[in-house]
Amino acid sequence: MTFHATVLTLYPEMFPGPLGVSIAGRALREALWRMEAVQIRDFATDRHRSVDDTPAGGGAGMVMRADVLARALDSVDPGRPVLAMTPRGATLTQARVRALAGGPGAVILCGRFEGMDERLFEARGIEQVSIGDYILSGGEMAALTLLDACIRLIPGVMGAPSSGMDESFETGLLEYPQYTRPAEWEGRTIPEVLRSGDHAKIEAWRRARAESDTRSRRPDLWERHDGARVQSPSGARRRNED
Amino acid sequence: MTFHATVLTLYPEMFPGPLGVSIAGRALREALWRMEAVQIRDFATDRHRSVDDTPAGGGAGMVMRADVLARALDSVDPGRPVLAMTPRGATLTQARVRALAGGPGAVILCGRFEGMDERLFEARGIEQVSIGDYILSGGEMAALTLLDACIRLIPGVMGAPSSGMDESFETGLLEYPQYTRPAEWEGRTIPEVLRSGDHAKIEAWRRARAESDTRSRRPDLWERHDGARVQSPSGARRRNED
Repeated sequence: MTFHATVLTLYPEMFPGPLGVSIAGRALREALWRMEAVQIRDFATDRHRSVDDTPAGGGAGMVMRADVLARALDSVDPGRPVLAMTPRGATLTQARVRALAGGPGAVILCGRFEGMDERLFEARGIEQVSIGDYILSGGEMAALTLLDACIRLIPGVMGAPSSGMDESFETGLLEYPQYTRPAEWEGRTIPEVLRSGDHAKIEAWRRARAESDTRSRRPDLWERHDGARVQSPSGARRRNED
Repeated sequence: MTFHATVLTLYPEMFPGPLGVSIAGRALREALWRMEAVQIRDFATDRHRSVDDTPAGGGAGMVMRADVLARALDSVDPGRPVLAMTPRGATLTQARVRALAGGPGAVILCGRFEGMDERLFEARGIEQVSIGDYILSGGEMAALTLLDACIRLIPGVMGAPSSGMDESFETGLLEYPQYTRPAEWEGRTIPEVLRSGDHAKIEAWRRARAESDTRSRRPDLWERHDGARVQSPSGARRRNED
C-alpha cells in the first residue's frame, strides 16, 4: 500500500512543488508515495465555471460553493480520510501526522477566499484541520506542510528508522539543543558534558535541557506534559490506591 | 520600502515555488515584495563543501555547523529580523505575522537534519520560530508558510483593505462559519437568520457562533480570549475600583 494524496485546489500547479525536491522528492520518484492535484474549477457547471459566490448574510469576499466542492470530492477514489485545511479546524499535532502517515493517504481540500460552505463538512464527514493560529492566502501551503510532515514518516523515506523518535513533540517535550564541531567557535565552546564520553551523564543533561527549555519556551506544552505525567497510572492514581 | 525576504537554505530551488503562484506570485511580479534564496553550501570552506557534522555527545543524524551558517548569514544585507525555523522555537502567531509584514522583511534560516548548532542563535541574536507542533523534513516548508502569511498582509496585495480583520485569530476567536448559494443543497439549508436581511441579528448570530465554535473546537484559544477579557481594564479592574 502506497501513501496516496489527492489535493483538490484551484492552483494544481502548486503541487508537488517543494515536495518534488529533497527527501520527499526522492521518495516520490521512488514511488514510496504518490499524489495528484485535482482542479476544482473542472467541476463547476455554469458557463463562467464559477466555484464561489457571495457570503450568505453579507460581508467581504467570496465563499466556495458546497455543490461544486462536493462534485470534485465525489470524483476522487474513496477509502481515505478527507481533510479540509481551514483555520477553523483542529490544530495539527504530531500524533495526527503519525496516524495519517500510517494510513492509506489523504484527500485534502484547499480553501481559498473567505472559506468553504459549512454544509459541505457535515454532508461529507470532513475533518477540518489547521496547521497553526495564523492566516494563509489559501489551504495549499497548509496541505504542502501537512504532506511534508507525513511523507518523512513513511517507511523507507528517511535513512535510519530510529531517527525521528527523539525529536521535539514525539516525547511531549521540545528536543534538547544540538552542537557540533568546531569545539570552539567565536569564543563559544560546546558544553563540557557533551565532550565527556559519559553516556549516562550526556543523557541526563539532554533530558534536563529538554525539560527546562520546554518549561521556559513553551509553558503550554510543559503544562500538558507535566499534567499527563501526574495523571498517569504510575503517578497519582497509584498513590491514591496506597 | 518593499518587503524583502532572504532565505538561507540547502534547497534554493524550493523558492519562490508556491509563492510564485496566485496572490503571492502576482504581488511578486508587481514588486510588492521580493526575495532571494541563498545556498548555504556556498559558504562551506573545506573541499567537500561540508555544512554539517555529527552531534556532540553522540546520537543519530547530523547537525548544521555554526561557522558555516554564520558566514552565510553575515553575507546578507542586515537591518531585518533574523529568524530560524525550528520546532524548538516560539509558536508563530498572527500577531507576529502582522508585525513582520509591517517591517522591512526577514532573513530566514532553514534547518535540515537534526538542527543547527545552538551557539549560532545566541551569537547572532536569532529569533527561533516554529509554525506548529509537528516535525517537517526541513525549515523550507515552514519558511514558505511564514512568508505566505506575511505577504497577504502587505498593503496592495489583497483586494479590499477591510478583508482580513474579520478572520480567525485576528479577534482572538475562530471565524464564524460561512454559507453561500445554493440556498438549499442536498436537503441542507442556509441558516434562516442569514437570509433575513436583518444586519444586527446577523452580526449577533455570527458573534455567537464564533464564540461557541471557539469554545467547543479550541478550548485553549477560548480560555486565553476569555481570560484576556476578564483581566482587561474595562472588566475586572474597573469593578475593583468601585
